[in-house]
Parts: sequence; C-alpha cells; structure tokens
Amino acid sequence: MADNTETPASVTLDDIRGAAKIVEGQIVRTPFHHSFMLSQDLGVDIWLKCENLQRTSSYKERGALHKLLSLTEEERKRGIIAMSAGNHAQGVAYHAGRLGIPTTIIMPVGTPAVKAENTKRWGAHVILEGHSLEEAGRFARKYGDERGLVFVHPYNDAKIVAGQGTAGIEMLEDVPDLDVIFVPIGGGGLLAGVAVAAKAIKPDITVIGVEAALYPSMYNFVKGTQMPARGDTLAEGIAVSDPGVIAGEIIKRLVDDVVLVSETDIERATFALLMKEKTVVEGAGSAGLAAIMADRERWKGRKCGVVLTGGNIDPRLLASVLTRELAREGRLSRLTIDIPDRPGELSRVAGVVGGAGANIVEVYHQRVFTDLPARGTELNLVIETRDRSHLEGVLAQLEAKGYRVVVKSSTAAA
Amino acid sequence: MADNTETPASVTLDDIRGAAKIVEGQIVRTPFHHSFMLSQDLGVDIWLKCENLQRTSSYKERGALHKLLSLTEEERKRGIIAMSAGNHAQGVAYHAGRLGIPTTIIMPVGTPAVKAENTKRWGAHVILEGHSLEEAGRFARKYGDERGLVFVHPYNDAKIVAGQGTAGIEMLEDVPDLDVIFVPIGGGGLLAGVAVAAKAIKPDITVIGVEAALYPSMYNFVKGTQMPARGDTLAEGIAVSDPGVIAGEIIKRLVDDVVLVSETDIERATFALLMKEKTVVEGAGSAGLAAIMADRERWKGRKCGVVLTGGNIDPRLLASVLTRELAREGRLSRLTIDIPDRPGELSRVAGVVGGAGANIVEVYHQRVFTDLPARGTELNLVIETRDRSHLEGVLAQLEAKGYRVVVKSSTAAA
Repeated sequence: MADNTETPASVTLDDIRGAAKIVEGQIVRTPFHHSFMLSQDLGVDIWLKCENLQRTSSYKERGALHKLLSLTEEERKRGIIAMSAGNHAQGVAYHAGRLGIPTTIIMPVGTPAVKAENTKRWGAHVILEGHSLEEAGRFARKYGDERGLVFVHPYNDAKIVAGQGTAGIEMLEDVPDLDVIFVPIGGGGLLAGVAVAAKAIKPDITVIGVEAALYPSMYNFVKGTQMPARGDTLAEGIAVSDPGVIAGEIIKRLVDDVVLVSETDIERATFALLMKEKTVVEGAGSAGLAAIMADRERWKGRKCGVVLTGGNIDPRLLASVLTRELAREGRLSRLTIDIPDRPGELSRVAGVVGGAGANIVEVYHQRVFTDLPARGTELNLVIETRDRSHLEGVLAQLEAKGYRVVVKSSTAAA
Repeated sequence: MADNTETPASVTLDDIRGAAKIVEGQIVRTPFHHSFMLSQDLGVDIWLKCENLQRTSSYKERGALHKLLSLTEEERKRGIIAMSAGNHAQGVAYHAGRLGIPTTIIMPVGTPAVKAENTKRWGAHVILEGHSLEEAGRFARKYGDERGLVFVHPYNDAKIVAGQGTAGIEMLEDVPDLDVIFVPIGGGGLLAGVAVAAKAIKPDITVIGVEAALYPSMYNFVKGTQMPARGDTLAEGIAVSDPGVIAGEIIKRLVDDVVLVSETDIERATFALLMKEKTVVEGAGSAGLAAIMADRERWKGRKCGVVLTGGNIDPRLLASVLTRELAREGRLSRLTIDIPDRPGELSRVAGVVGGAGANIVEVYHQRVFTDLPARGTELNLVIETRDRSHLEGVLAQLEAKGYRVVVKSSTAAA
C-alpha cells in the first residue's frame, strides 16, 4: 500500500454528489454511448464512457479539479506539487494553470519529451528527477515539504476519489438500468469512487475492477494472493505496484470482483476500439473491454458499462497494436522459403505470391546463414493477405510449386 | 459528369427537412463537438461533426436510408442494387437489411474481403464483377435492369442529396452561429445537400468544398480547369473522377470555394485527429481538417464546422499514417553510417546512440554494396528519438566520434 498522508477516509455518495456540483461545467460531460458494433460482435450489450474525450484525454481531471477547488485561498497561493509521468500530470497542470495556481510537476528522468511538453504547455514547472516513480515520488514529497506546497496525490486522497466517482453518477444518470460497470484499476481511485456512487444509487449493480495480469496488486490485496507485479505492459497507465489505502478499503468492501487481463486481451481490445468504435484508447483504458472480450459468456445479454479511462497512447505503440493484430488475424505474415540458388527463382516465387492476389510488403534474401546445402538459399517475405484462408491459399500454391515454406503469421503474444 | 438516370433536380431546404423527419431515430444523431486541442493548436475555432460514429461509420447512411424509405411497396419487394467498394455499400446494405429489402451489391474484383464481409453481414448478396468502378457500375446497371431492381446511386440522386443534407441541419441546430462549414467532395452529394441546408438556414455562412489534389474533378467543373484526376490517394473514398450532375449544379450555385489538399495535408490531418481528438477518421474524412491546417491564417478566429465523413480505414494504412508522421517529426529516422570494417565498431556506434537516450528500432549492416573503400562498411539504423532536437543531439555525438552519417528522417511525401 502506498505511503499516504491521510488516514483511510470513507467516501460517501454525498461526497461524490458534492464533487459533481463543484466541478460541473469545468469538466467535459463525456458521452456514454451504446456501442452498436461491439455489442453485435460480442453478444454483450456494451456502453462506453468516453473519458478519453476529456480535454487532456483522461478521467484524471475529475479528481484533480475537485482537489484543487477544495484548497484554501492561502494554499492556492502557495501552490501545489504532483508527481506523475502520465495523465495525472496533465490533468493537474491543465486545471491548476486555468485557475492560476502555481504548479510543480515532478517526472522521472527519461520521461518522453512529448509528455513533459504536454504538461508544460499549461504553465506548470516541470522537474525531471529520480530514476523510478518511487524515487521521483520521494523527491516530490521532500521538494514540496521544503516549500510548503500542497501535494496532490494521484489516487490516495478522499477528494480525488470523490472526484473520480462523478463518472459513476453520470453513467447511471444516462443509463439507469445498467447491470454491470467495468473499471480499470491503477491506484484504485477511479474504481473506488465509481463503486461508491454506483452501489449507493443502484445497490444491485455489479461492479468489476480490471487489472493488467502483469500488475495484480489490487487483486493481491483483495484476494490475499502474492502474485508478482512487474513487467512491460501496454497498460502502463495502470502499472501500479502500490495501490491506495483509501481505495483498497472501499474496493474490498464494495467491488464484486477483480479480474486480470493479459497483454493480448488488452491489445485486442485496443484494436477493437480503434477499428469498430473509431476511438483511440490507451492500453490501460481498454482493460474494461478486454475483460469482457476475454470472458464474454459470463457477460452475455447483460447491460455492461465500460469506462474508457484515457486516450494518451504513443503513436508508435499504436502502430504496433495495429500491425500485431493483423499478424494475429493472418493478414500480415512472415514467410521463410527455401529456394534453389538459381537465377530467376526470386521472380518465380514473387510471381506465385502475386498471382494468388497477395501483396509483398518486405523482402529479405540471404544465402549465407541458412542450414540448407551450399546450393540452397533462403528467402524471407512479409506478405499481406485478405485473411487467414487467403494466406492458406497462397501457401498451398507455393507448396504445389515445390517450395518448402515456414510461416510466422502470429506474434509471440498471440 | 456521371451518367445519370435523373435530369438535374433542384433540392430545397424543405426536401432536406422532410428527409430529416423521415430518417429520424434510424440514423445516429452524431455529436458535433468543439475540439479543444485542435482549436488551441491551430488558432481556429474548430467543431467536428462525427459522421464516423454512424453505425456503419459514415454519413452515407443518411442518403441511403432516405432513398430506401421513398420506394414504393412494390419497389421494395422487387429489391435494390448498388455499386460501391466502400461506405455506400455498407450504408445501403445495413438499412436495406434492417428494412427487409432484398439487396444486391456489386463490388469490383479485388475488393478486400473484409469490405465484402462487412457488406454481407447485413444480408446483402455481394457480386464481385468488373476490374474498375466503371466496369462494375456498367455491370450493376445491366444486372439491375434485367431484374427490375431499383438502382441506388451513391450521389447523383435528389433523394440521396437531400438525405445527406440532414447533417447540415443538425450542425446549425447545434451551433447556430457557425461561420464556415468544410465538406469533403467525392461525388459531391454531401456537399450539395449541406450547402442547400446551410445557405437556406444562415445565408451569410461560408461553405467550402474540399477535394484531394489528385482528384480535382469538382474543382475542374467549378473553376473551368482541366487538371488530371488520377493516382493513389489516402482519401480513396473521395477519389471520384465523375462527380454528380445534380450536385455539380448546386455546388456551382451555392458553394463559396472548392479547395484542394495534398496527400501530406490529408495524412497530417488524419494523424492529428487520432492523436489530439482520439478519433479514427479515414483519409477522405480528414480532408476538411486538412484544408484548415494547410491554410490556417485564412480561417483564424472563425467558427469552423468540419464534417468527419467516415472512419473506415484499413489498419495497415492507419499504422503507416502513424509511423510516417513520426518520421516527419524527426521521431523515427533512418541513419546510414560509414564505419571502418573492424571488430567492435557496431557496438561502439550502438553505445553512442544508446548513451544519447535514443532507441534502436532496426539494424541493417552490410559490407558489399557500399561506395566506400574495401575496408569500409555501411551500417543502417532506424532509431527513435524524442523529437527533432534530440535527433540532432544524437547526430552531433556520432559526428563528434568521427562517424559520417546520412539521415533520412522524413518520408518522401513530406
């Protein structure tokens, strides 16, 4: 559990209603819309709460603004400090900038320049310090204490939890007969806030927390397990090893289940949101949909609300989510073909592939490091096919011409 | 101009209001929201009409449904036919399927299987015929005539134009003080419909049509030029060489200007919509924003409504839009480095690059086809940097160590 300045405080529906009134008009009331295509495809009635459409593209603004508006005049003058490499930094910086509150944001060394820039643009003073989130956090505490700055914690703060809970009120105002709500867990602030609101408004609603399988820290806390929390996840926004005490207590009491999703689940959900819903969601933000896709029989026929928590994903990562899914679907494949070392052989293979209607995307032809006899050589092709059965047709034609082909059509994670 | 079954018919605001009443509740009333980030970045007040959020992800449903609901009982029984490889096919098939109207869709041979599947899923009978849109179109006419099917033209039909115009009514209902509306032009049906609605409701509004520079067919018609219409465009949805007669007449009369956008403009707008707006828009659908980005001084301070016409873009194309923009921004670069052919040299270069905080994405090391002396060799690296100034830092460090580096950081189109 995270080191915390406050003792566990209970958050009530009244606190959240109060927060909703306080932030109203300064936070986007994001759409909560029915997903026609995903509902059709999955046989689950899916509603999406688009927090990726907040001004800084995540729900973090809700809690941050609520916290800022709770400061005294004197505290606002002294200023605030926060530590984050991600959405919390942008949410805090944007609203503090708007309100004229002096802001310092500590980010770990090596934070991509674009994230620092996105935070500086709102007027925040950004300091790169510490080689991990923990180191940066310790520095932020010390730096803030020395200067009398108010520390704005990303989740372990009752004001923050109440602010995040406003998303839950909006969902049930828009769709009062919702059966289930899915919320990704990082520190747990959003899930705790939404659970308090939802269970108070509609006691028979099911609330599910979703965590990346690589970072099962809240899962461990709730279920009493000891699974390790580490690794490189697409859902880096929820890769938290120390969840919050305030949130943890609420989640243990109110949340029906915490489920884990694999990296492949998260990638596929991110891809589905892009291609079916036309919306860009970061890995952490897709975790809720990932949980449904991974276990759709469990949710069949129920009215499921999914919080898409944020949309801040690196473009190169997004490109790789797209091409990896194409590989999994058999639409982009790497072939290794043994061919005799004779003039015209490459053109013959290219002719078979092209004649079968496939598109050659990359070619690598090498004759040194093969385990073939000296007169043999190896051709590597990346080809694009319409789907898996088209790929199989191409392979059959190559084999009919006497070529031995090894195919790598799926990624390691598939 | 396209071959047309109807003589030019005028479309009036009343026709469009009638269409709006007829399709109401069966078409998504898409959001028309303010883009906070793009407005900030461009200094233009930008509002986005999200037609990519229709059920089949394009505005085409508006006209298609209006046309279908205008058929007689007897025509509905005989069935309909349409020709399209894209959004029109899906829009027609979806609504005709819903209404129980037998539907035949002709697609050119070689249409990606996924597009045919997306059309078949609504119950349409799909026939692949013809090696171009023109051939497929001729076949569709003949096939339909022989069987007494009603031909549903994608744009050259007064019912279709009136249906598309409903988007214009919605925009002005939501934001009555809009100054300018930008609409991409394919056949011109959407622009014509929106222009009729907008000019009748707010006569002093400016309406701008946007065409891909590779397909300036409506531009030619309006301006009397003779520029060629051909080539491979990201905006394949508006790559129409024969715009409609009905639309052409209206556009000449009502539209204030037709502007052309380059492929780079279209790519950058598609990227901006993804990364800033978190929304997936196909090339054709981004043309309106591309026009603003390419000429922002002209639109500064004005309230501009942009129709995002559709979101059906191939995942591999989308991935390539992302990586090409990273290349243009200097975040992904290809370096060619001359190194002496000595053990340890590769590791030394990798050390300099890594030490400067850049990420090596691809390596290709070859010693045969260089124009260096026999003892020299060539190293190709693809590296990822935070931004252009970071790239320059990496290059400076390599050069300080005595390496000659040639960099290719931008794509050919940039």
